[in-house]
Amino acid sequence: MFRTLSAAALLAAASPLAAQVHRSPLVDPKVAALRDSALQDQYAWDIAEGLTTEVGPRLAGTEAEARARAWAVKKLTALGFSNVRVESFDLPVWVRGRESAEILAPFPQPLVVAALGNSGSSGPGGVSAEVVAFDSVDALKAAPDGTVRGRIVFVDHAMPANQDGSGYGQFGAPRRQGPTIASQKGAVGIVVRSIGTDRHRNPHTGAQEFSDGARPIPAGALSNPDADQLLRILKRGQPVTMKLVLESRTFAGQSGNVIAEVPGRDPSLPPVLVSGHLDSWDQGTGAVDDGAGVAIAAAAAKRIMDSGRPLRTIRIVWFGAEEVGLVGGQDYRARHGKEPHYALLESDFGADKIWKVDSKLGTERKAEAEAIGKALAPLGIVTGSFTEADGSDIGPMLADGHPGVGLGQDGTRYFDLHHTPDDTLDKIDPVQLRQNVAAWTTVLAILSGPIEEPKRPKRR
Amino acid sequence: MFRTLSAAALLAAASPLAAQVHRSPLVDPKVAALRDSALQDQYAWDIAEGLTTEVGPRLAGTEAEARARAWAVKKLTALGFSNVRVESFDLPVWVRGRESAEILAPFPQPLVVAALGNSGSSGPGGVSAEVVAFDSVDALKAAPDGTVRGRIVFVDHAMPANQDGSGYGQFGAPRRQGPTIASQKGAVGIVVRSIGTDRHRNPHTGAQEFSDGARPIPAGALSNPDADQLLRILKRGQPVTMKLVLESRTFAGQSGNVIAEVPGRDPSLPPVLVSGHLDSWDQGTGAVDDGAGVAIAAAAAKRIMDSGRPLRTIRIVWFGAEEVGLVGGQDYRARHGKEPHYALLESDFGADKIWKVDSKLGTERKAEAEAIGKALAPLGIVTGSFTEADGSDIGPMLADGHPGVGLGQDGTRYFDLHHTPDDTLDKIDPVQLRQNVAAWTTVLAILSGPIEEPKRPKRR
Repeated sequence: MFRTLSAAALLAAASPLAAQVHRSPLVDPKVAALRDSALQDQYAWDIAEGLTTEVGPRLAGTEAEARARAWAVKKLTALGFSNVRVESFDLPVWVRGRESAEILAPFPQPLVVAALGNSGSSGPGGVSAEVVAFDSVDALKAAPDGTVRGRIVFVDHAMPANQDGSGYGQFGAPRRQGPTIASQKGAVGIVVRSIGTDRHRNPHTGAQEFSDGARPIPAGALSNPDADQLLRILKRGQPVTMKLVLESRTFAGQSGNVIAEVPGRDPSLPPVLVSGHLDSWDQGTGAVDDGAGVAIAAAAAKRIMDSGRPLRTIRIVWFGAEEVGLVGGQDYRARHGKEPHYALLESDFGADKIWKVDSKLGTERKAEAEAIGKALAPLGIVTGSFTEADGSDIGPMLADGHPGVGLGQDGTRYFDLHHTPDDTLDKIDPVQLRQNVAAWTTVLAILSGPIEEPKRPKRR
Repeated sequence: MFRTLSAAALLAAASPLAAQVHRSPLVDPKVAALRDSALQDQYAWDIAEGLTTEVGPRLAGTEAEARARAWAVKKLTALGFSNVRVESFDLPVWVRGRESAEILAPFPQPLVVAALGNSGSSGPGGVSAEVVAFDSVDALKAAPDGTVRGRIVFVDHAMPANQDGSGYGQFGAPRRQGPTIASQKGAVGIVVRSIGTDRHRNPHTGAQEFSDGARPIPAGALSNPDADQLLRILKRGQPVTMKLVLESRTFAGQSGNVIAEVPGRDPSLPPVLVSGHLDSWDQGTGAVDDGAGVAIAAAAAKRIMDSGRPLRTIRIVWFGAEEVGLVGGQDYRARHGKEPHYALLESDFGADKIWKVDSKLGTERKAEAEAIGKALAPLGIVTGSFTEADGSDIGPMLADGHPGVGLGQDGTRYFDLHHTPDDTLDKIDPVQLRQNVAAWTTVLAILSGPIEEPKRPKRR
């Protein structure tokens, strides 16, 4: 709807109050106008709502993820992007089956469990054994094999909720390392406290891989209230036995990255890559992880396209198969990792407000990085590092030396929802989503270079 | 631990600050002292923690509820109560089996569903049909049979969260009436929006009965996010088909009320009945519904007993089989309904702070009702009606004309948890739980009459 409006017209259309506030001379007025008008964005909501409603869950490599790619191609084409295409790749697929956990003694009762990615299958009969508990992966590592052999391991942790999401790496160790260590010590199964910060009966799934030759064993996550309950039962001091049923199966499948572009005026210049991931875990509808991310990236690119033609090409990538090991990012890197990119960006931390911008554009582009910070400040965004940026799928390419910008979302409630059935559309706050789009539009407007306004019919 | 301390000694032991605040002369100092010391209560937490940990879920008529009665008898005996006994009764039992809901077209995806009590069993193959949606039971009632026949009905509503819990009656109509009406109009199944106020993927179960000769059909509740999703899908305007699997079975079982007493000095006087219900729904551990209630009632009685001997007998009743139709209350009424009771009280609305006291003691006991209000005011409790009181199991006896007192808990978040897997111990706030115990202890101290302090050994 802004296609025929110039940035100047948008500025003039701003509220009377805004007109009375003198703006920073350090921010390009066209950039500021694009930023402010994006606070009324509807594109991102429409994408997130459409994807989560019309496709729903879309686990990597499944038929549902294939439907998501078809949906994405149709949607990106309808939005008017160019060069819409899928780059496909093969991958092994793991899907969950029936799952349950049950205390057999001393206090018989069900617990709520979800299998972790790549869990071994228990078969329909499950495994039953005494539970041996550890407060950390370090405690599990230190245990003699005899303490673990033939038992079901439980690993606890105390993950906090933090604005910057810090702790997911450290406190996620039980999920990532626990199953392999438990298997190597002869455990018949493992349950970990969910890597999450909520208190609902929704376990947090997530990827893990049996490495170093460890035999796959059933590996699940208990919800936080169930982990609390198991601890209370253990503290009674009697032997605790558990039955764990975690069925699953694996097969060879296919995924792909969906790519679309806003062609730049100078195709010889390296593109600006903006991204999120299209796949989701299977229990929610992947709204905050990462329906919001693909929506924000595409909405910002759409807003630039609506306002005119940028100098540099903007390349939207909706990665496939991120959750199961950044497979889409690896495929993109294998195909395009040697090509220059002007900057890499990825939105994959929900839809709550962006509070910090980090960048890694190099010392020769410090002024550009500073300009980004100045332009974002009115959105309540602090300027962070000039030497780092991050992203999940783009992480390896950033590590290779490609430049990037990181827009950090408030993660305080992110790990309440992450990898659970509760990751649904209602958890996206439309107002905060728009702040995200405004921040991305701002950064894109700067990185993609001066936008040439479309020719308009003369006024009558 | 207060057994050998007099109320006066407790008062003297209060904090220095409290000693500097002049108290209302309208409140008996012994009552005030019992009230204030109850703010340090540990009994209620221990009961709620023990019951939910060592028994867990305890559906009416099941082996788990029988274990809960055995646990209750042991606990009430250990606490020193007298005449601990079980009054047993028979009842038909319904238990859930496998359950799932799935959109088959136009956007295939799973939805989260839970069977309602007494749902018909779909069998393992489930039922598949087009969905027909109504915004209310009234809309369903008004529909021609032809609109409903052969279809799966969905009934929506817009239940709000209110401090006094109002709305559960009105907005619970889809659960209570929907299945019967849908069946009578020829529906093959029904799903209702959960009668709940949260936004988690936890459906709210609850009782319903097929009446007026209606054939049982599969009847379930979708979680609120799933009801939202179904509405979004319906609004796309294409026919929506759903597969609904709700297996269940029924059998003849037994339940019972667990009763214990603090004997009064005058056994000829009518008892004060304090109660909650021991059974719970099957998916949570029945912490707020109603582990907290039985804990609060017994803790308050224990505190009176610890302080001396009341004039009137305090009778604790932990009702069985409340959730499935107030069966325990009906049994108690059949056995004891003709006997005089000095007052009936029941705690069955969670563990958040009590904000209002209502009573129905009769005009000749207005002064007693006013004294209760004065004594509760320092706990932040407003005095409400003098002509009404309520309670679930005790409701029919109150309607018969028995006197009662109602201590109203803050229900703002109650229907976030009610009848869901999320009803677990962590949802009980220990500080608010103690305020409940303080209020109940206060009311019991007044209703059970002057407490005679135990004889103590002379000071050396």
